[in-house]
Amino acid sequence: MKKTDILHEGKAKVIYATDSPKHVILAFKDDASAYFGIKKSSIQNKGILSNKISEIIFTHLAKNGVKTHFIQRLNDREQLCLRTTPLPLEFIVRNVIAGSLSRRLDIKEGTVPQNTIFEICLKNDLLRDPMINRTHVTAIGITNDETLDKIKEIIQQVNAIMVPFFKSANINLIDFKLEFGVDAQGEILLIDEISPETARLWECDSQKILDSDLFRRDLGNVEESYTDILNRLQTNI
Amino acid sequence: MKKTDILHEGKAKVIYATDSPKHVILAFKDDASAYFGIKKSSIQNKGILSNKISEIIFTHLAKNGVKTHFIQRLNDREQLCLRTTPLPLEFIVRNVIAGSLSRRLDIKEGTVPQNTIFEICLKNDLLRDPMINRTHVTAIGITNDETLDKIKEIIQQVNAIMVPFFKSANINLIDFKLEFGVDAQGEILLIDEISPETARLWECDSQKILDSDLFRRDLGNVEESYTDILNRLQTNI
Repeated sequence: MKKTDILHEGKAKVIYATDSPKHVILAFKDDASAYFGIKKSSIQNKGILSNKISEIIFTHLAKNGVKTHFIQRLNDREQLCLRTTPLPLEFIVRNVIAGSLSRRLDIKEGTVPQNTIFEICLKNDLLRDPMINRTHVTAIGITNDETLDKIKEIIQQVNAIMVPFFKSANINLIDFKLEFGVDAQGEILLIDEISPETARLWECDSQKILDSDLFRRDLGNVEESYTDILNRLQTNI
Repeated sequence: MKKTDILHEGKAKVIYATDSPKHVILAFKDDASAYFGIKKSSIQNKGILSNKISEIIFTHLAKNGVKTHFIQRLNDREQLCLRTTPLPLEFIVRNVIAGSLSRRLDIKEGTVPQNTIFEICLKNDLLRDPMINRTHVTAIGITNDETLDKIKEIIQQVNAIMVPFFKSANINLIDFKLEFGVDAQGEILLIDEISPETARLWECDSQKILDSDLFRRDLGNVEESYTDILNRLQTNI
């Protein structure tokens, strides 16, 4: 399969069309950014590590019955995926309160909520990905309640698979972001990536930060930490 | 019934305890504020007009089966109400996109959404009443899903009553804010006020703003406009 046009160039990835109408190629870059592009840098091998970590997670999810766009990793930086129409939404799952939510509600980072928190954000960099709810999603015609119900079900399934998967690597899955697309048959597929770029991962006992907050908060050792995550998950398979 | 301690002093109202444990007295002030207290002023007779408008609306809602805290207006500025434990939440209903939502999602004011939009905000001035969703509400232990389901039902009932009530006064109910409290028997009651202070009201054909956006946006004529609303609703009863 050959790459043709760029369909979308994001902050961390490029999505290429291919000579097959049903397939895309995701190419992972080393570019790092935070706070909607205010903070920018490059982290050596980040693209390679995210590509490999996401491969392991998507493969594990597929093995456990989750339908995803992922087909196979092609090389260090690229993976072959099914082409979908992506929903312009980010779905966030929070098992522990951290990051922006901690600041918004003035709740100490690390607080365990009485139930898992689910958020929906509109993917729109100019508007800074505002948090919305289901009634906004349907009100502005992005999708319908039936699709949102189905997505909620998949998200809960994904979380139930991922928490123990990371726990067995001695990692606490604090929160993570999911994206979904709809394929030509109307099937909802998990798309994008799941990696330390899109998930908060803390070492279980030490509470050591292992994810991209290392970059956001200038704590250093990003490459080492992502390599550590990859090694733990590889041993874990 | 006699006023005793101040239970709460807000930007527009004071809530007094009374010598009856089951009752409070709401006193409406002329103080006007916007943008979390950044803009402050006083509008002559605003308290009197809001008290009388809210009386009409709460009376109409009660007549149509909505359980509210309102008992009776005592004088120009005060009303007698049932005492409840207020939920620290604001429930917003949007029939038309306007105000902060218009800015957050970059959608033209006046756009009619494909369905009514319901929002929940945490009442917390210091945090600027952040928008949250049901999973946050239960996660931080404010209330449970059963209560939220019941409140959603009441909100839809209130909106279904209020839209035609205002329409027959040639007013378009753009959006409004509701608050709820729980009484000693565990009953959920509609509390606070409903007035041009808490609702966006546009004249049906002219789209003329009649509500507190006149103050927020320095358009003037607040007292005249609130008087006009009161007259329209009085004729309407």
